[in-house]
Amino acid sequence: MTSVDQIWYGCRLATLSPLRQGLGLVEDGMIAAVGGRIAYAGPAADAPSALDAKQRTDCEGRWITPGLIDCHTHLVHGGNRAAEFERRLAGASYEEIARAGGGIVSTVKATRQASTEQLIAATLPRLDALIAEGVTTIEIKSGYGLELDTERRQLQAARQLGNERAVSVRTTFLGAHTVPPEMKGNSAAYIDAVCETMLPRIAAEGLADAVDAFCEGIAFSPDETARVFAKAQALGLPVRLHADQLSNLHGAALAARFGALSADHLEYADDEGIAAMAQAGTVAVVLPGAFYFIRERQTPPIDAMRRHGVPIALATDSNPGTSPLTSLLLAMNMGATLFRLTVDECIAAVTREAARALGLFAETGSLDAGKFCDLAIWNIEQPAELVYRIGFNPLHTRVWHGHSHIAASGIA
Amino acid sequence: MTSVDQIWYGCRLATLSPLRQGLGLVEDGMIAAVGGRIAYAGPAADAPSALDAKQRTDCEGRWITPGLIDCHTHLVHGGNRAAEFERRLAGASYEEIARAGGGIVSTVKATRQASTEQLIAATLPRLDALIAEGVTTIEIKSGYGLELDTERRQLQAARQLGNERAVSVRTTFLGAHTVPPEMKGNSAAYIDAVCETMLPRIAAEGLADAVDAFCEGIAFSPDETARVFAKAQALGLPVRLHADQLSNLHGAALAARFGALSADHLEYADDEGIAAMAQAGTVAVVLPGAFYFIRERQTPPIDAMRRHGVPIALATDSNPGTSPLTSLLLAMNMGATLFRLTVDECIAAVTREAARALGLFAETGSLDAGKFCDLAIWNIEQPAELVYRIGFNPLHTRVWHGHSHIAASGIA
Repeated sequence: MTSVDQIWYGCRLATLSPLRQGLGLVEDGMIAAVGGRIAYAGPAADAPSALDAKQRTDCEGRWITPGLIDCHTHLVHGGNRAAEFERRLAGASYEEIARAGGGIVSTVKATRQASTEQLIAATLPRLDALIAEGVTTIEIKSGYGLELDTERRQLQAARQLGNERAVSVRTTFLGAHTVPPEMKGNSAAYIDAVCETMLPRIAAEGLADAVDAFCEGIAFSPDETARVFAKAQALGLPVRLHADQLSNLHGAALAARFGALSADHLEYADDEGIAAMAQAGTVAVVLPGAFYFIRERQTPPIDAMRRHGVPIALATDSNPGTSPLTSLLLAMNMGATLFRLTVDECIAAVTREAARALGLFAETGSLDAGKFCDLAIWNIEQPAELVYRIGFNPLHTRVWHGHSHIAASGIA
Repeated sequence: MTSVDQIWYGCRLATLSPLRQGLGLVEDGMIAAVGGRIAYAGPAADAPSALDAKQRTDCEGRWITPGLIDCHTHLVHGGNRAAEFERRLAGASYEEIARAGGGIVSTVKATRQASTEQLIAATLPRLDALIAEGVTTIEIKSGYGLELDTERRQLQAARQLGNERAVSVRTTFLGAHTVPPEMKGNSAAYIDAVCETMLPRIAAEGLADAVDAFCEGIAFSPDETARVFAKAQALGLPVRLHADQLSNLHGAALAARFGALSADHLEYADDEGIAAMAQAGTVAVVLPGAFYFIRERQTPPIDAMRRHGVPIALATDSNPGTSPLTSLLLAMNMGATLFRLTVDECIAAVTREAARALGLFAETGSLDAGKFCDLAIWNIEQPAELVYRIGFNPLHTRVWHGHSHIAASGIA
């Protein structure tokens, strides 16, 4: 007699297990959990006999996927950019908006002015929107402080959010997001500060799980990015990169050269860059929310990613300037509609591949014994419904580390 | 002393009143309701003195808009087309999908097989998603029966949904949606059936508030559409039209000629058609969800609509084949992002102009005395946030005919 905490039965599984084909579908499935981790996930018929469970849940035929993972967000920030959005639609130019204090500078200002508590309070509704769709792991970047204190406050707020809610938070230091307004035109000096002051302190305090940078004509050069990455690696931190979003600076290849966990955006990446990512095991994180919101026309080279076998993840890129998106389900639909990802690719992209992009695939992202019992239980008849619908949330129950949270209806 | 049922105070209003400029903003507002209707809406300072209210609600600075109106949906249907969506992404051609029983024919089949009760049960989750965002009025079309019994069942289900939930339902008979599979190639005979059998019966039973048709190369010709419209008018029913979505058949002008309440889609409408709509007072209903989902490139002639003074409404077009969208807030963001509608236009498009498109502006769509007290109360700092965010629902409370329904959080 094996004793477990809980069993879910009468369910269909999309295990995403690398041991199975495609989505790793199991028609008559069962999951058993002990101590917050999966003890068994697979066909009910193959389960260990004589399982003794404290709690047994009949899933009544519902589908279970791994809990969703949003692997690229800028969720913690002050203010929003609704007024700027409104002015732009009314015909204001970028210059006029900049003169009116708009653009990323306005978010930096609002974030600097906010306390950790205020940042947490501002972020919780956004986090709750994601959680309500079955998200069990989320990555959150800094990058709106652009000086040590505020960058630390953003990361502290992100860590604290993982205590406020039943969700795993991974933090990423993105000091090299843009040059702060007070150092305009002097990116070299700012990169000095990032490498010599900010990064060592943030590493010492254990505030970041990874380091990111924005390599772009309007942000930092490949050389500046390489400096940041070299320092991060010296401090033992894995790197990721905002690469080739608006132009091809060979960011994909740069990320690969540093063995980055992921290179993100990639609209303008070339075949060579994608091949280098495949060699390095770097995950491609595509971000259709930003593509949609800024009305980009060039789609990322999905076919090259497939050809070279680069894993593809999808994320919201939730941020106030270019992707005020707080629905990972919608990011999946956009991945299919705008980038022509298949249903299987979209579902893997917010589970298995997103876990890989965070270096967490040993812990979550598939229904395999030994991993955290992070589940999303859905009121759907087939997995494709998760990708097909637009603005609809079929979540029935979210399970984080073995603990269930039942979805409420929208109106009491 | 004037006695009212309820007062909302401490609120900011976007009244959408035609008596005010733009969104009709009121900074320190008050709303009073009696018998489900607005007794007063406007500045608190101008309210009748000595109002005696049974209930007083402090809105703590929240914004109130009219309850939202989704004026073009195909919400009642059997089945879904997720599998077809999946196959198409995997590379299947339209032919292959048709051979596999896909396309609108599959929805017709599933709808014909469903009882009224099954149609209601299938539709409720979609309706609840819209209601959760503050929708208080919704239009629902038939058009997946294509024979009398199922068309009636669809409309009966739509009417019944208005009893199941605190929402106003307007029904539209769309028998002329497509030629039914059993009459393939014989559209004239089917139009005969629509005009001579179906329309008279549906009118006699009071099942439809309006009549719609799909005028398009793949559906019905302008002449066939005109036959349906003439019959509808003879029966005293107002008309609407799916016009110029995929090609310019001069549907906009045709709609105007019949004094249609609205012409919908309009991607390929020309200036002459828009001018005719302005003359006729026909509302333009633009449907960015379908534009997005079928990856259309040609946007509707918004500038011409502005120039000629045609009112612009936005709707979800919620349907299984070309717009599986159940978020009117997202339709607003798509209207802004994809069609470049301004924030004010988007908000008016789902309130005042949507009411006009349904011929209901005397009853709802703005915060004016005498109208139904249909409100959406929002956790926002400025109206632009309703349009700017993607996949986020800031609704605090929905009020339908004076009765409040407080929004629940997503996870219990």
